Parts: sequence; structure tokens; C-alpha cells
Amino acid sequence: MSRFMSKAYARLDAYTPGEQPQNLSSFVKLNTNESPFPPSPMALACLTEAAGRQLRLYSDPTGRALRERLAKTYGVAMENVTLGNGSDDLLNFAFMAYGDAGMAYADISYGFNAVFADKLGVKSEIVPLKADLTIDPADYCGLGMSILIDNPNAPTGEALSRKAVERVIAGNPDNMVIVDEAYVDFGAESCVPLTKKYDNLLVIQTFSKSRALAGARLGFAIGCKDVIADMELLRNSTNPYNINRLTLSIGEAALCDPAYLEQCTQTIMENRAYTAEALKGMGFSMTNSLANFLFVKHSEIGGLELYQKLKEKGVLVRHFEKERIREYNRITIGNRQQMDVLLGRITEIINERRACACGREA
Amino acid sequence: MSRFMSKAYARLDAYTPGEQPQNLSSFVKLNTNESPFPPSPMALACLTEAAGRQLRLYSDPTGRALRERLAKTYGVAMENVTLGNGSDDLLNFAFMAYGDAGMAYADISYGFNAVFADKLGVKSEIVPLKADLTIDPADYCGLGMSILIDNPNAPTGEALSRKAVERVIAGNPDNMVIVDEAYVDFGAESCVPLTKKYDNLLVIQTFSKSRALAGARLGFAIGCKDVIADMELLRNSTNPYNINRLTLSIGEAALCDPAYLEQCTQTIMENRAYTAEALKGMGFSMTNSLANFLFVKHSEIGGLELYQKLKEKGVLVRHFEKERIREYNRITIGNRQQMDVLLGRITEIINERRACACGREA
Repeated sequence: MSRFMSKAYARLDAYTPGEQPQNLSSFVKLNTNESPFPPSPMALACLTEAAGRQLRLYSDPTGRALRERLAKTYGVAMENVTLGNGSDDLLNFAFMAYGDAGMAYADISYGFNAVFADKLGVKSEIVPLKADLTIDPADYCGLGMSILIDNPNAPTGEALSRKAVERVIAGNPDNMVIVDEAYVDFGAESCVPLTKKYDNLLVIQTFSKSRALAGARLGFAIGCKDVIADMELLRNSTNPYNINRLTLSIGEAALCDPAYLEQCTQTIMENRAYTAEALKGMGFSMTNSLANFLFVKHSEIGGLELYQKLKEKGVLVRHFEKERIREYNRITIGNRQQMDVLLGRITEIINERRACACGREA
Repeated sequence: MSRFMSKAYARLDAYTPGEQPQNLSSFVKLNTNESPFPPSPMALACLTEAAGRQLRLYSDPTGRALRERLAKTYGVAMENVTLGNGSDDLLNFAFMAYGDAGMAYADISYGFNAVFADKLGVKSEIVPLKADLTIDPADYCGLGMSILIDNPNAPTGEALSRKAVERVIAGNPDNMVIVDEAYVDFGAESCVPLTKKYDNLLVIQTFSKSRALAGARLGFAIGCKDVIADMELLRNSTNPYNINRLTLSIGEAALCDPAYLEQCTQTIMENRAYTAEALKGMGFSMTNSLANFLFVKHSEIGGLELYQKLKEKGVLVRHFEKERIREYNRITIGNRQQMDVLLGRITEIINERRACACGREA
């Protein structure tokens, strides 16, 4: 840090992204919840043309074409949609816009939440998950501040029903409720329909998971017109060209291929069920994840140990060195072949451990 | 605006980007300083491969490959380089990092500077340009706050020599000096070499102008290791994946084609000289622009009138409704054909005006 750095930020503890090894061939990468499938062929097909013709020109700062397509897809109007350079961009603006009285969120939730709060001087109200790592909606009533719910939650994957989230929204008419639905397409219920009924709701989603476009950086948020105007004001006061031309085109094309989305998410859900079943048979317990990952712990092997041994064997999963969840690992659901490699490696680890234990006993 | 919006931002006056008409065929677009040329063929060639193979995966949050290439190109080390989602992204972080004691910048400068200051609660010290619209480096000594110099300046295009900027840097050893070099490649001197000598210097550049990649959103900043660490801390606390995979690839490939950069910037400089000469012959005066635009005013036609009449004739230039410069227009330098259309339309406007004046006199 330089001697010139602002006192407001000098002690920031930045977000730690999951490992992103650049030598991809060395790992089965199941650590950052990316899709095992490529983006829609329709999304890719638009690229060359979009690039050759227009890349010298600024992107449309209003993102009109993509917002119109999103509005049509989600049954809202264009004025109910804003775009972000990934959903982190939108979460940052949401903390800015709605942090005056503080922000309540779960002790176990997206790790970036605490970083935004810290950076922006927003008071965090940390609400513990229940013992079973689920959210109790009743804990979010009467707090007198904005509320952020990751639904499904990360890294547990546990989801509240739309009805349960609605109780929080209706119970806090004078506070903003932000619902981060990054993982909603893998079997949970979206709160987007509630944005027509409540003016204190902002729903944030991303193209990074179900639409296989993590590398394109595209998120969007849906809310009532005034809430979206807040977000647009901050975006236009920070980086009006935050989404580039290629990403605008890809996003629009991806939305034109709902069958591909359906096929990818269905396959992920099947692979999730298959992997969960197999892991249970090996002595794992887990949360009830409705996301594209499982959050699992083993009856004998510690969380860090499993992470390290899997990494040695070329399988990357995500471990959080954090109280309450350090015995867990978060495992992204990949394709069937990747899941079988994972299960095979875990079987090896369990067998090696037992052989070792027998050796000691002998 | 919603009733939930933070008081800190409720009165923000967002930046107004230049018009970005989506019906491009209707205009000769000379209003936002884009390149008339496509990006390097090498940059475009990398796209399809980069997209097909990896777009499902997050981009490298460290941007290592591109930063290494930039470091090599500019004769510094990777730790001296950070990346932004356009240079606006970097300016935003610079205002955050170095705004504690205020930020001094010219009354006529990049319009976003005031927006960043306002949004972030940074006290602005507005330093008037001299009567001839140039910067007097002496005005920037002893202010006791950070200093931001656009060099070349926008929208005047006037540039200080490296030696003149160095006097400001050396004269403010205890204050950060930020030099925005968005337009430096069209004939001005860069201060990048000074980053090895001074720890209070941050130089910001962009791929949007000389490298014809406005639509890809890529900026970079160069400074001493500690200053870059400040910027990285803020980036990692806001949006660690702020540059997408496609843009990382395109940027890297573009740097591999210095001959194309040289050819494009040379042509722009030739077209600038050609256009300036022709405009002077028509009764225009102008600043001494070393950027990819001219900043011109006519002896008879008002600034707003010229802007409007050109727009009616399908030529888009940029007019700023701002004291001191409202008689001017900023005209992006395009290719020779675009410049000839511009000159032809201006000739028409002058002739129509004279015919009209004669009619009234008759």
C-alpha cells in the first residue's frame, strides 16, 4: 500500500476469489460453480459478427436491446431491468444505494457481502443461520435496515420458497430487501414475480452459472421502476459503459435459446442427485442444495484434509476456513464424467485413509 | 428514485455520455472519439478461439497474461500495472484511493471527473485553464491535495510536455498526481517513464482510442508497486473479475501488433492536420490538439447552432453546454472520407447561412 492511500480503505480485507488455475488441463475444476457446458451455440455464433463490425465503437450505455430481451424473458418492462458487469457489480451498487441504516445478511452467505459492507462503511447485521444451516425468515423481521438474502444461499445451496421470502419482504415494507438469485435456475423459486407487487424488492441474477457465461461477466437486476432508477444512477455515476459490446450481444443471443438453458440445468440437477446419492453412500452428509453445487462433510475426513487430498489428485473443490463450516467442502456439479472422477478420487482417499489406519493398528 | 435511496447519492448528477445512436447508418459519427478503423486483425482473430474454449469459466482475476504483455510493451514490471473495465473504472478507484484531502483538476477537463468527486464525497479544487485554454503547471503547486491532469486534456486536446508534468509531480512530493493519458498516442508525450522515478504518480491509459477497442472496455494504469497495490485492493474489494475473458484475450492480441497501432495513429494525425487546415480556411479557430479530435469554434456560427445543423445533416459531433467553451465543438478525427463529408457539410452550412443573410439584407 502507498503512503497516499485513503484512510477509509487502507484496512480493507479484499474478497478472495476461488482459485483460478490457468493450467486448466491439470485439474478437474469444481471449485467456482461454473458450468461444465459451453455457452449456447447461438451465443457464440453472434460473436464474430459483433466483434468485426463494431468493436471500435462504444457499447450502448443504456444496454437497451439486452434489457428489452431480459424484460420479455422475465415478464417485466425494460424500465424494471438494469445490467451489471457480473452480479458483483450490482451487489456493490445495492450496498451503496441501500446501506444507510445497515445491511442484514446471514453469517454463512456469499463471502463478498462482508467486503462490500466494509469498503462502503455499511454497518453489517450478521444473522446466524439455524443449526441445520438454513435461514429462518422470522430472523429478518423488525431489524429496521436493509436485508440481503442469497437464495439459494451460498455456499449451502439451501433455498427458501418464494412464499417464505415474501414474508420477509411484506414484513419489512420500509426496508429494502435484496435477493441474490445467482443460483436460482437449478431448482429454486425466483422472486422476480414479486417485483410487481413490492416496491422494496431488488432481485439480482447472473449469466455466470446456468447460462455458462462466467467468462463474459454479465449480471442483471429486476425491481420496480424507482429501485432500478437508483441502480442506474449509481451505474451512470461510476461506469456507464460497464458492459462491453461482445457481452451485450452474447447475452442477448443466449436469451434466445431457452431450450439450451433448460437442457443444461436439467442435466446439472440430474448430476447433482446422482452425486449426492453416491456421496451419501460413502459417509457424507450434506445440506439440501438447490444450486449447481453440493455442500458436503464426511463423517471421518476433515474438510481441509479432503480439499487438500483432492487437490493433490487433480480435483479442485472449494473449502472455506470459517467457523461452523470448516468441515465442509463446496463441490461444483460438473458433467457426469467429472463427477465420476470426483467420486473415484474420494473413494481412493477413503481407502488410503483406512489402509493407513489399519497399518497403524497392526 | 426510490424512497430507499441512500442520502449520500440521492442528489447525484450522473455523467452524460455522448450520444450513442444505435442506427449507425444514419450518421457520420464524430462525437465520442472512437477510431474510424477496426481493431487489429490479430485482436479479432483471437476471439473465436477464446470464446469457444473458455467462456463458461471465470476470467483470470489477476489478469496476469495481459498485465505481463502491457509491462513488456511499456518497459515496466507486471506489479506496476493494473487493469480496468475501461479507464473510467480506474479513475473511479483513483478518486477513492487518493481523495481524502481533495482532488485538483481543470475547470475544462473530462466531464466525469466532477461526477466521481461528487459521488465519492471528494472535495474538488477546480483550477481554471489559462485564457487560451491551456494548463499552467504552476497552478498545481502547493495545493496540498491530489492532482488530476488529463494529458492531452479533454475536450481541448492541448498537451503538456513530459517535462512540464514532471514539474508538477516533483513539486508535489507528498501528494498523488494522476495523469489521464487516454489520448496520448496521437502525438503527445507519455509520463509512463516517470513512474520509475516518482512514487506519487499514477498514469491511466485506455484501449478505447488509439487501439480502436472502445466497445471492448479496457483500460490500464501504471505506477510504482505500492500505488498499484492500492488500486488492486480497491478492485479486489469491488469486482475482481472486472475484465472478461474476451477482452483480456483481445487486449493481449492487440498489443502484439504495434505496426497496426503506428499505422492507425499516423493516419489519424495526418487526417487531423488535413482537417485543421481546411477548417482554418473556413473561418474556424481551434486549440492545438494532440488528440484524435479537434476543438474548434467558428468566427460567425455559434457552437450549439453548428452542432445542431451538422446533426440535421447526419454528422454527429460533441457540443458541451458549458461556460467558456459553448462556442466550441469537439470533432473526432475519422477517416479521410468522413472528414470530407464533415467539411462538405460545414461548407453547406456556411453557404446556407450567407444566402439567408443576403436574403434578409435584400
